[in-house]
Amino acid sequence: MSRLTLTDAQRMIDAGVKEATRIDQPMNIAVVDDGGHLVAFVRMDGAIKASIDISTRKARTSILMDMPTADLAQATQPGAELWGLEQTAGGLVTFGGGIPVTRDGETVGAVGVSAGSVEQDVTVASAAVAAF
Amino acid sequence: MSRLTLTDAQRMIDAGVKEATRIDQPMNIAVVDDGGHLVAFVRMDGAIKASIDISTRKARTSILMDMPTADLAQATQPGAELWGLEQTAGGLVTFGGGIPVTRDGETVGAVGVSAGSVEQDVTVASAAVAAF
Amino acid sequence: MSRLTLTDAQRMIDAGVKEATRIDQPMNIAVVDDGGHLVAFVRMDGAIKASIDISTRKARTSILMDMPTADLAQATQPGAELWGLEQTAGGLVTFGGGIPVTRDGETVGAVGVSAGSVEQDVTVASAAVAAF
Amino acid sequence: MSRLTLTDAQRMIDAGVKEATRIDQPMNIAVVDDGGHLVAFVRMDGAIKASIDISTRKARTSILMDMPTADLAQATQPGAELWGLEQTAGGLVTFGGGIPVTRDGETVGAVGVSAGSVEQDVTVASAAVAAF
Repeated sequence: MSRLTLTDAQRMIDAGVKEATRIDQPMNIAVVDDGGHLVAFVRMDGAIKASIDISTRKARTSILMDMPTADLAQATQPGAELWGLEQTAGGLVTFGGGIPVTRDGETVGAVGVSAGSVEQDVTVASAAVAAF
Repeated sequence: MSRLTLTDAQRMIDAGVKEATRIDQPMNIAVVDDGGHLVAFVRMDGAIKASIDISTRKARTSILMDMPTADLAQATQPGAELWGLEQTAGGLVTFGGGIPVTRDGETVGAVGVSAGSVEQDVTVASAAVAAF
Repeated sequence: MSRLTLTDAQRMIDAGVKEATRIDQPMNIAVVDDGGHLVAFVRMDGAIKASIDISTRKARTSILMDMPTADLAQATQPGAELWGLEQTAGGLVTFGGGIPVTRDGETVGAVGVSAGSVEQDVTVASAAVAAF
Repeated sequence: MSRLTLTDAQRMIDAGVKEATRIDQPMNIAVVDDGGHLVAFVRMDGAIKASIDISTRKARTSILMDMPTADLAQATQPGAELWGLEQTAGGLVTFGGGIPVTRDGETVGAVGVSAGSVEQDVTVASAAVAAF
């Protein structure tokens, strides 16, 4: 497996910033490696501060669960199978904006985006992933 | 941007205490700066102790999200977009009583009030903001 | 036992602010009740932000140990009896600036001061206690 | 006061990366705003993972104490005045590598560098500050 490099992370962040600028929503964008550890991060001017943690946590959740965070939304509702999941593993985020990235079929990292609506976060995260 | 001073904070707290006295509900009132750091705090005689943390956290949440905490109540319900948000960023409060204050269009601080009903908390927080 | 009131706390804080102004060192000043719970707090303009926590923790330590924090400095040195104490009870502060206040022989609260040298912190805390 | 922008942070990080490359020591480099909140971060390929937290915490400590972290090393030794300080305020770092940056005489942010020797960390942090 070839690891996600800082160059990879910066290319993803640049693509994310470009898309965030296009939709006119300043964002926090975090990229983590396959261990969920931060590689690169930017907070665009005007993006809310709570999303420093949320974006990083979305990226980390994507690694720990090995799936996009959007896939956790239904499963963690009251009465659903993973009700309460968000309190485990140091705190997971269960709404969209975190997406793993793969290389040769293996998860090598993840991006997390936060500060807009969930739909906007997913849009920007997807643009970052596409650049990988 | 001019910073929120202790004089600003004390004027807000005095106005909050006056309104809390008028509605006969002792309150915890916290004022934080634009980084969410505490500037001044009072617990009126008879106000519950849990609200020391809740009032401070409401003020901090208002800064981190850059919005009144009342605006988070609907969005964090089961099935809603930000379900689980309250567990991020060190713990956010998602019911009313925290309100940011602005100067020249920029958020420079926030007030958080807790110990009464949410409606009472919002009433007292609004009185504090009006004095700013 | 008559409890420490907000009026008591504010009188202590006013005296502390006056002394801090006299020695020209902006301070964080916290007053807690006999349970170690915050009653009132001010951060003077220009006082460092780390001392928000340190002043509050000094006051709380004074209650939990029922002694001035300055009395813990020797006992917690490497090789001394209470080596490692500061890691217990949610985190204690073992240098000067926290002092309990008593009424009719009973501890009813404590003040914690932080942002200057330890000597300055103790000077301001003592002025606050004297006003009680 | 004019805020530290993402452009400011990226210029500092670029200068830090350049210096880290020159001394051949991959680093973690974090830039925070005047509230201690992260603005930008990079982990260079090969830099140790513990330093993600250490670099960020150095930058945050510089804000909370309003001084370089190197200035805390002596004062927090056994027997010295601030023995035990590192356990307060959510955890402070008391060795070199964190430096505040000022504009018009006011602290507007800080940089934190970690992964090399403390001397190397300070060298790279200084290069980042010089670019501000």
